[in-house]
Amino acid sequence: MNGEAPETRGRFRRAYEITTRWLDQDPYDHINNVVYYSWFDTAVNAFLIGEGLLDPGSSPIVGLVVESGCRYLRPVGFPAPVSVMLRVGHLGNSSVRYELGVFTEGEDIAAALGHFVHVYVDRETRRPVPVPTVWREKLGELQRPQ
Amino acid sequence: MNGEAPETRGRFRRAYEITTRWLDQDPYDHINNVVYYSWFDTAVNAFLIGEGLLDPGSSPIVGLVVESGCRYLRPVGFPAPVSVMLRVGHLGNSSVRYELGVFTEGEDIAAALGHFVHVYVDRETRRPVPVPTVWREKLGELQRPQ
Amino acid sequence: MNGEAPETRGRFRRAYEITTRWLDQDPYDHINNVVYYSWFDTAVNAFLIGEGLLDPGSSPIVGLVVESGCRYLRPVGFPAPVSVMLRVGHLGNSSVRYELGVFTEGEDIAAALGHFVHVYVDRETRRPVPVPTVWREKLGELQRPQ
Amino acid sequence: MNGEAPETRGRFRRAYEITTRWLDQDPYDHINNVVYYSWFDTAVNAFLIGEGLLDPGSSPIVGLVVESGCRYLRPVGFPAPVSVMLRVGHLGNSSVRYELGVFTEGEDIAAALGHFVHVYVDRETRRPVPVPTVWREKLGELQRPQ
Repeated sequence: MNGEAPETRGRFRRAYEITTRWLDQDPYDHINNVVYYSWFDTAVNAFLIGEGLLDPGSSPIVGLVVESGCRYLRPVGFPAPVSVMLRVGHLGNSSVRYELGVFTEGEDIAAALGHFVHVYVDRETRRPVPVPTVWREKLGELQRPQ
Repeated sequence: MNGEAPETRGRFRRAYEITTRWLDQDPYDHINNVVYYSWFDTAVNAFLIGEGLLDPGSSPIVGLVVESGCRYLRPVGFPAPVSVMLRVGHLGNSSVRYELGVFTEGEDIAAALGHFVHVYVDRETRRPVPVPTVWREKLGELQRPQ
Repeated sequence: MNGEAPETRGRFRRAYEITTRWLDQDPYDHINNVVYYSWFDTAVNAFLIGEGLLDPGSSPIVGLVVESGCRYLRPVGFPAPVSVMLRVGHLGNSSVRYELGVFTEGEDIAAALGHFVHVYVDRETRRPVPVPTVWREKLGELQRPQ
Repeated sequence: MNGEAPETRGRFRRAYEITTRWLDQDPYDHINNVVYYSWFDTAVNAFLIGEGLLDPGSSPIVGLVVESGCRYLRPVGFPAPVSVMLRVGHLGNSSVRYELGVFTEGEDIAAALGHFVHVYVDRETRRPVPVPTVWREKLGELQRPQ
């Protein structure tokens, strides 16, 4: 998340359309800050499941979140949906840093910017494991456009 | 919610597509029972806002929930979206009973059936007020197909 | 949930103190209707786990919710905690109907009344199983005081 | 959040006991990463309300979150409560950086470390305003122990 360049849709790789919910709002009549993280979690897991990499109930490797963060740039409201866009910021040995942008309809500049670091672990032992080759290929395709 | 007739899509009036979220799941690997109510709330308010009846931040009348309920017929999973369908079951003087069906992709029989009773109140006094005529017309269109 | 007799604390068996959260509120500055169900779920499972009946990650029997409902009698606000009180309304062969009262500090009349029906199933097959004898004893102690 | 010194309870100023909920868990049988932020939000607002600084429904100044983040160091489970501890990391002109530690029972080392930056704005215009003197005094008491 570079503070200088505006983060536009073209700087991300995948978009996940997410509908907002009445309860997402708080007394200040906008989407509460907590809710954005539920979108990040959803986008990353939807990617992993959609690519056939993760089966949450059975795959030998699962992703645990070790760090997350978000900068909120403009408020987002109900009932319009948001588009949560995804790219890979860093592909490590056992960990992946995902970067996420929240976009409202008709806007090309992100309303919020997040990151989300997964460490991939063995389902049983919960010890880190190397990101498998087939994952690395798929994740490589998510790296930030040049 | 009649126990005999199967509740199919044709018995409802409006459909709201709602995306599921990773966090909606619980340790039993399905969408948790609580989350369905967040969908009901969302569908009813999306209807009211979409028809121009309710502006949550400023309209003189707001809806307070006095009763809700749900029967869970089949589990629903992440990441597929659900279609939450809406009809009006009873249109009273100050209250409206909404009936809701949760449908998964490709299924015509509801996976869950809910109800949700709103009492319409004055925003400031929180005392019940008659459902206005313009609301009654729009709500009348939501009554169960014969 | 009998409409006539006021539901007081003395009509329930166990109390679970639950803290409210900022996000539990909605734009109408009270706890959103959906959130009450997360308290019901919490109280029932805290009881089952606390009594040593349920281990969510490993016990052979798990409880699936087949029906729930709530009547909201008075609004509840943040940041005060609530006391969620529990009793068993019906103890069936494979199912248990729990009844719940939400009490605010210093009040003896419930602010909300809920019910929550669990069917107990085999973890793997998800087919109903009889409620085991040791469970029946503990659940029997939760039946409504005379 | 200094990576070297272990973050113990003694490095924070206030503790808020927060009960966990069944739904806070995800399919990996621990509290989901999103939920921690609902605790941070709750602790900061409970502090502001408890000190008489903020009345969410009426005070002329409200706090909007512009940035948040969390590092997850050890998993946290249901049904044990957590203690969320609070200090002020930086007290700016219009903004305050809160730092939070999540502690499980009997542990003196934080299971998670978060931060949460509020900008204080005029309720109506949503433009930043200086943190009032009475707030500065209360917030000053929350600064990290030396």
